[in-house]
Amino acid sequence: MLNEKILNILKHEGPATFATYGTDGIHMAATWNSYIEVLYNDALLIPAGHLNKTQRNVEAGSEVQMILASKDVMGLQGKGAGFLLKGHAKFEESGVNFDKLKSRFSWARSAMVFKVKEATELV
Amino acid sequence: MLNEKILNILKHEGPATFATYGTDGIHMAATWNSYIEVLYNDALLIPAGHLNKTQRNVEAGSEVQMILASKDVMGLQGKGAGFLLKGHAKFEESGVNFDKLKSRFSWARSAMVFKVKEATELV
Repeated sequence: MLNEKILNILKHEGPATFATYGTDGIHMAATWNSYIEVLYNDALLIPAGHLNKTQRNVEAGSEVQMILASKDVMGLQGKGAGFLLKGHAKFEESGVNFDKLKSRFSWARSAMVFKVKEATELV
Repeated sequence: MLNEKILNILKHEGPATFATYGTDGIHMAATWNSYIEVLYNDALLIPAGHLNKTQRNVEAGSEVQMILASKDVMGLQGKGAGFLLKGHAKFEESGVNFDKLKSRFSWARSAMVFKVKEATELV
């Protein structure tokens, strides 16, 4: 799911943006590639400093979409690779995932665990 | 609206992602910062190669949200600046905007003109 090319993108710094949907419409937010940790083959761990509306939308049932991309990774049409990830997330305010993030990001109030169900390379 | 910091972000390469909403939910897509041209103080010109679903959503009335960010620009909390832009878009398949893009991007089928109504710096 999270293939070599995606892992390679995460090694290059850049914005990692994601979107949810709620009662007041689309909500976009972002983190940095370097802040993301790969949890399993299909999950990403993201430190939540704010992300309050993202959490509200997620807990009301919204899916999460994220785009990871880097111009420094070879894509389908030469230089520049990007992936659209779709899945669902949960927020953890304690436990091993939260502790791991908290030790690296003192400002983290929660750990966003993004379970990826689908990863599509963008053309 | 499109202030100096946003123009500075656009000078650094990275993914520029945007989201619309339609009958099948959220739709995220992306271009590269270096592909975007600033049209006026409140409009961005984006080459559309595909972006068919973005166009369908836009023409059905969806707003457009976009995040522009770069870790190499100073933000509100040190290194790393990002902005959330909200507005509406239209697609032009001919005319001066399209011709300008087409001369640079032979693959462009349309020019996406993103009229920005609101720009908020992300913390």
